[in-house]
Amino acid sequence: MIILGIDPGYAIVGFGVIEKTKNQTRVLDYGVIETHKSEKMAVRLNKIYEGIEFLINKYKPDHFSIEELFYHTNQKTVINVAMARGVILLAATRLMGVDKLYEYTPLQIKQALTGNGRAEKQQVQYMVKAILNLNKIPKPDDAADALAAALCHSQTNLILSNTDIK
Amino acid sequence: MIILGIDPGYAIVGFGVIEKTKNQTRVLDYGVIETHKSEKMAVRLNKIYEGIEFLINKYKPDHFSIEELFYHTNQKTVINVAMARGVILLAATRLMGVDKLYEYTPLQIKQALTGNGRAEKQQVQYMVKAILNLNKIPKPDDAADALAAALCHSQTNLILSNTDIK
Repeated sequence: MIILGIDPGYAIVGFGVIEKTKNQTRVLDYGVIETHKSEKMAVRLNKIYEGIEFLINKYKPDHFSIEELFYHTNQKTVINVAMARGVILLAATRLMGVDKLYEYTPLQIKQALTGNGRAEKQQVQYMVKAILNLNKIPKPDDAADALAAALCHSQTNLILSNTDIK
Repeated sequence: MIILGIDPGYAIVGFGVIEKTKNQTRVLDYGVIETHKSEKMAVRLNKIYEGIEFLINKYKPDHFSIEELFYHTNQKTVINVAMARGVILLAATRLMGVDKLYEYTPLQIKQALTGNGRAEKQQVQYMVKAILNLNKIPKPDDAADALAAALCHSQTNLILSNTDIK
């Protein structure tokens, strides 16, 4: 089973693609979709949509995992992040179907990866590296957070029965 | 010139379609796209995208006008409205092109319709009815607000030279 994890944003969208087999979970790809502040928000949203479309077409993920969005103190930021998140959810729904879409709170992700819903960011990143047998912690943070969302899904999702795992 | 005005939301998206000719501005259509709270947010976002797509294909607007989103006290609401707004901007950009997309603040819309940026909602609605020669104020409010966004564009847009007006 291939899982695409996304860390939503409007300047930087993190992505992480993992494959879960019977014996292991391995990374297929990770990185970021970037948009530039010199461009209009609508153009940035379209680049984000096309970036997600590209990743879905390339890796043909079975499931899509994304972090839920919570309160920010900066209102301007929260509106822009939410607009980007709406576009990301739309891309996943149109290209994969809403039933393939899973959302997790930051607490659920921390809990799944470290056993502690209040874990520090560094601890989550360390576990991403450890679970995926990487040489170093993935950079930038947005990519590591996206891999964490994907791993949270692979570790907590009840649908992952033996028959689902290829 | 045909202008599609949108009042963004996630439960109700208002729309208003007007045509500006040399001698008059008339309404072609107005109403709402509704989504139900029993459905997942991703499904609601997809319905909104498809609703905007339907309107653009039906009326082939030359320009698209939408109100900017500002601070809400309710964080949950602002996140959902912003997600919907992101999807609406995406639809307009993909189907019409970003150069056809215009955004106005609530103050600009009130100023354009009533001459007073601090006008009451009722006064704006009264002017929508008056400018479009309607028998009554359009309902619901979301549709009236969308017509106001379209009218704001038709009254303030500098591109509307005589050569543009068919």
